[in-house]
Amino acid sequence: MTTSPTPTIRYEFDRATALESDDDVHFAGEIEDGWDINGNANGGYLLALAGAAMRQASGRPDPLTITAHYLAPGKTGPITVSTDVVKAGRQLVTITGSLRSPDRELMRVIGSYGDIATMGGGYTHVAGAPPDLPPREQCVFRDRNTGTVTVALMDRLRVWLRPEDARFQLGEKSGRATIEGWLEFADGRPIDSLALLLVVDAFPPPVFNIDIPPGWVPTVELTVHIRGVAAPGPLMCRFHTEFVQNGFLQEDGEVWDSEGTLVAQSRQLAMLPRS
Amino acid sequence: MTTSPTPTIRYEFDRATALESDDDVHFAGEIEDGWDINGNANGGYLLALAGAAMRQASGRPDPLTITAHYLAPGKTGPITVSTDVVKAGRQLVTITGSLRSPDRELMRVIGSYGDIATMGGGYTHVAGAPPDLPPREQCVFRDRNTGTVTVALMDRLRVWLRPEDARFQLGEKSGRATIEGWLEFADGRPIDSLALLLVVDAFPPPVFNIDIPPGWVPTVELTVHIRGVAAPGPLMCRFHTEFVQNGFLQEDGEVWDSEGTLVAQSRQLAMLPRS
Repeated sequence: MTTSPTPTIRYEFDRATALESDDDVHFAGEIEDGWDINGNANGGYLLALAGAAMRQASGRPDPLTITAHYLAPGKTGPITVSTDVVKAGRQLVTITGSLRSPDRELMRVIGSYGDIATMGGGYTHVAGAPPDLPPREQCVFRDRNTGTVTVALMDRLRVWLRPEDARFQLGEKSGRATIEGWLEFADGRPIDSLALLLVVDAFPPPVFNIDIPPGWVPTVELTVHIRGVAAPGPLMCRFHTEFVQNGFLQEDGEVWDSEGTLVAQSRQLAMLPRS
Repeated sequence: MTTSPTPTIRYEFDRATALESDDDVHFAGEIEDGWDINGNANGGYLLALAGAAMRQASGRPDPLTITAHYLAPGKTGPITVSTDVVKAGRQLVTITGSLRSPDRELMRVIGSYGDIATMGGGYTHVAGAPPDLPPREQCVFRDRNTGTVTVALMDRLRVWLRPEDARFQLGEKSGRATIEGWLEFADGRPIDSLALLLVVDAFPPPVFNIDIPPGWVPTVELTVHIRGVAAPGPLMCRFHTEFVQNGFLQEDGEVWDSEGTLVAQSRQLAMLPRS
């Protein structure tokens, strides 16, 4: 390991996103083992790595909106993140990031950072609601081994899927490209905006519930909006796909906290597996 | 005007997005008068200007996914767009763009370009439908002068709003943050993916149908996915906002062609007017 875990880092996710920097512009860290699906680092984890560097470089805690374009799969090992402040405004700092392994660029990112906790107040309108989930004990706990895929990430996160949405794991697709469920860190780490970047890509693709050709669904682009501060407790998540056409699919996500407040929205464009 | 319209440019939108370049990397053009709302250039028009440069620099016709962060309002006058190819892959070219006026950067953009027409085939799943619009003659034609706002853009585009969604123009808000309607270019220009970048920001904000404080709703970030090739004929558009909280709002858009195919999806994060 190039970045040794220090004794002061209490949680797995903080160790896995720890970075070193001399100048708050260029950062070094590593893609840690165990945040992958069949050996490819989870896209949300990669975004959190870049997002952690951009947070430090911007001096603001929250990526109010952040977009990643995925260029190559991430494998365990050392990485660097180079950041560049585009504009430092009063409320928002717009910043880019480039995540690289020693031999190639893995991801290019742009985000506008701010402090969501200080932006509150004003008019509120919510035309939506958290998923109507059964209690966790009536949901399907997502195991690291589901069918032929090894989801090492599921050792780090605890995910409970809505029973109707989980039967694809037994080969029974619901026909509805939606997956809802509960999520928390296995080690109890609190949910902040950095964690939400991981969360929005941590569920199985909802298209596993329709008859797409089997295979990996590589993300081309992922955008996350941080919309609130999460209260303690498990998150309620909803992911759904409406449009699979011309070789691409969209996946939308909503993440709600335990008190029923929307804390993140996401949308990604992914490529359909080629049959 | 720094870029003279040439006699071969037939349509207004092509003249307004015409660029000159010696190297297909750096481009010069101008923000043309008449694509604004109260003097600020429409955000979709600015994205189309950058998108036109990125199209030429990438050598691919369609921004399959493109994201803009807005840094400053655009005023009529000369601009430059600098582009940088991040990765040129077999199917996708990922590229960044920076749109500048003489004194400041107005917008930073990242996109992945490809050729949507060649990516067809394969599995299709559509869990959605175009808006159920009355015929155009039963809709409300959007005039350039609506209340206190002058929407010069409405000389370039013809927009017909669904009657229920249009009464906010008379001070009667529907209470539902949705606006649907028809759209076409006033001069009959065909709809390609460049035009769709304009279209997704060309409707009034759907929050005008709820009780937000009055004022400008500046876009922080806009992401557009190009999902299909538009058939000839007027577009059917749906824009809606679900979440206004902590000083920000999201706006989602769907653009469907005259044959009922989804051709673009959009999402933007905007700032709530401060009351």
